Amino acid sequence: MINKIGILGSTGSIGTQALEVIKNNNSYSVEYLSCFNSVDLLVEQVKEFRPQSICIVDKNKELELVSALKGEDVQILSGFEGLWEISSMKVNLMLNAIVGSDGMKPSIIALNNGIDLALANKESMVMAGWIIKDIQKKNNSKIIPVDSEHSAIFQCMVGESEKDISRIILTGSGGPFRTRDVASFQDITLNEALNHPNWEMGSKITIDSATMMNKGLEYIEAYWLFNLPINKIDIIVHPQSIIHSMVEFLDGSIKAQMGEPDMKVPIQYAFSYPSRIKNSIQPFDFIQNEKLTFEEPDLNKFPCIRLAKDALISGESHQVVLNVANDLVVQKFLDKKIIFNDIPRMIEKAISNHPNISNPTLNEIEDLSNWTKEYLNREVIDA
Amino acid sequence: MINKIGILGSTGSIGTQALEVIKNNNSYSVEYLSCFNSVDLLVEQVKEFRPQSICIVDKNKELELVSALKGEDVQILSGFEGLWEISSMKVNLMLNAIVGSDGMKPSIIALNNGIDLALANKESMVMAGWIIKDIQKKNNSKIIPVDSEHSAIFQCMVGESEKDISRIILTGSGGPFRTRDVASFQDITLNEALNHPNWEMGSKITIDSATMMNKGLEYIEAYWLFNLPINKIDIIVHPQSIIHSMVEFLDGSIKAQMGEPDMKVPIQYAFSYPSRIKNSIQPFDFIQNEKLTFEEPDLNKFPCIRLAKDALISGESHQVVLNVANDLVVQKFLDKKIIFNDIPRMIEKAISNHPNISNPTLNEIEDLSNWTKEYLNREVIDA
Repeated sequence: MINKIGILGSTGSIGTQALEVIKNNNSYSVEYLSCFNSVDLLVEQVKEFRPQSICIVDKNKELELVSALKGEDVQILSGFEGLWEISSMKVNLMLNAIVGSDGMKPSIIALNNGIDLALANKESMVMAGWIIKDIQKKNNSKIIPVDSEHSAIFQCMVGESEKDISRIILTGSGGPFRTRDVASFQDITLNEALNHPNWEMGSKITIDSATMMNKGLEYIEAYWLFNLPINKIDIIVHPQSIIHSMVEFLDGSIKAQMGEPDMKVPIQYAFSYPSRIKNSIQPFDFIQNEKLTFEEPDLNKFPCIRLAKDALISGESHQVVLNVANDLVVQKFLDKKIIFNDIPRMIEKAISNHPNISNPTLNEIEDLSNWTKEYLNREVIDA
Repeated sequence: MINKIGILGSTGSIGTQALEVIKNNNSYSVEYLSCFNSVDLLVEQVKEFRPQSICIVDKNKELELVSALKGEDVQILSGFEGLWEISSMKVNLMLNAIVGSDGMKPSIIALNNGIDLALANKESMVMAGWIIKDIQKKNNSKIIPVDSEHSAIFQCMVGESEKDISRIILTGSGGPFRTRDVASFQDITLNEALNHPNWEMGSKITIDSATMMNKGLEYIEAYWLFNLPINKIDIIVHPQSIIHSMVEFLDGSIKAQMGEPDMKVPIQYAFSYPSRIKNSIQPFDFIQNEKLTFEEPDLNKFPCIRLAKDALISGESHQVVLNVANDLVVQKFLDKKIIFNDIPRMIEKAISNHPNISNPTLNEIEDLSNWTKEYLNREVIDA
């Protein structure tokens, strides 16, 4: 049987690796693709994978795309309306690999249509975990996480019972600045921040990894994905990135999922679950990698972890603002408009000043999102 | 529902820990107990756990036991016939914690009677894996391993499919002589060999750990338990004994089961499988134990691993002789009759000279066993 897969964010790091997985297996077909504005790569992907439909979110690129695909048998959509339309199309699995907050709505639309979700967009859970859990319960659709950490936890829970879990342990490399003196954090350059020691990822998530906000967002994501109280989620720094995360059970037994850091493993697992499929990834060599180490995360050095934990405790609207503010200030850092230390500082400022709303609806999330962008642009960044 | 448990070897290290597990949980009752000759402890256990039946294997101790239990409502059996009779009694689970080759027949009797087996006696699989697999298939009874390594593998396989396994990785501490110069192995004293760095175990298995024959026997046990070809079983030295073993899948993903080295975890898991039960074992602290390391096993230093691998490749009768010879020479070492380096030397001699039989029957296993003891006693040890 062929599994029909739809991919949002197909030209990004996760999207292109997902297409590699599909290329190497004849059990999958591509039903649709979407991207923000990478016309050339999308055109290539259309010619290779022959999807039924595609969407380009940046409407300014629509004409260029249409003309490049003249004569091809593919439905072309555009803009956010196009993205939302494509998200409701019938597939066996939608991979949501959109970067940042824009990924939330497509996740909700897919689940509302009873479509199983391979979730690489952690922002969906951070911005609307409470809404997504409700929809999922109503429609009985599956969410299979694609983040390496959450995939590890998901894999460790296979065959186990939720009630037997005593703790989940998210591991994180600590990023490129784990051992750097915090006093020099103000001098961190964009190139230094983009240079992750273990993982090859897109630029937004690489900066999140440098600030360790990534771990903070994963903490919130884990909370919503795995139905555990806050005190049963721990973060441990593990610089080698070999153990991708762990689950501890109430008998003291811990299961860890490990291997070479390669996003193709969790992507592929989301496609093949509950089975596994062979690939060409080098088996991990314990003799070549003779040492695995662990450290406490330094919350003084990496205040983003603390901000995320606090947001989870303080309530849902805090999480929305945290996430939208992070999206925006990371982009400003990538654009060299602000310095590294501005990232946590500005996020904290937005959270402290936002209008607190408990259990915000989708409309309220949109309002909060707009408020955050306006506030930061008006009162903080350009001030 | 109360699970009725029978325990063979109840006064040994595994047996007493199993009774501790039962004491701390009201879901289990003790149906029978057996031991070799520890009358006093067995009497205590009878008074505390109130089994229906008990067996003392050493017939010389029978009268002492009967008189100590005068007036108690318990059936008392003795000798190997008693052990075999008790092994056929109806229980939900039999824990076979007998030390050495004597454990084989009780395993076979239980499985022949459709009784599920918690197996701490690895010698059962080493001496008769081919017979036990057949019986198990016929009777559809479960074997849940209690060795920490095989329990780890069993736990990592829960919810996974056998066909997806690419490799199992047995970890071993390397024992007390991992870093000792092989030139001084001839001077190893009994006390040095009995001093295991991580695990508290019985004396026979502690010596097996010092020679690393333990890892060799586990290699053979894993082969029969998990239906994998020889080239899919690896041994890695992991001095901290935190990762208890691992399973690698064909997508490159590895699952490890880890935790404080405490035999109560695998014992309890065998009782509670597929569920888990809470206990008072300290959760593992990754910050206090900040480093996990891995090394290739040194087959030059520890020839017992090589002997076991060779025996597995050469055929079933080699495994029988390996195991019986090891039982005997380890006892001689414990009795200070031979030196440490004699252990592998004498085992190898017995294997080289034994009458090769493929797929030996139970009678042939007994003949091989007798041949090995006579040969070693006559031609090697006392020569």
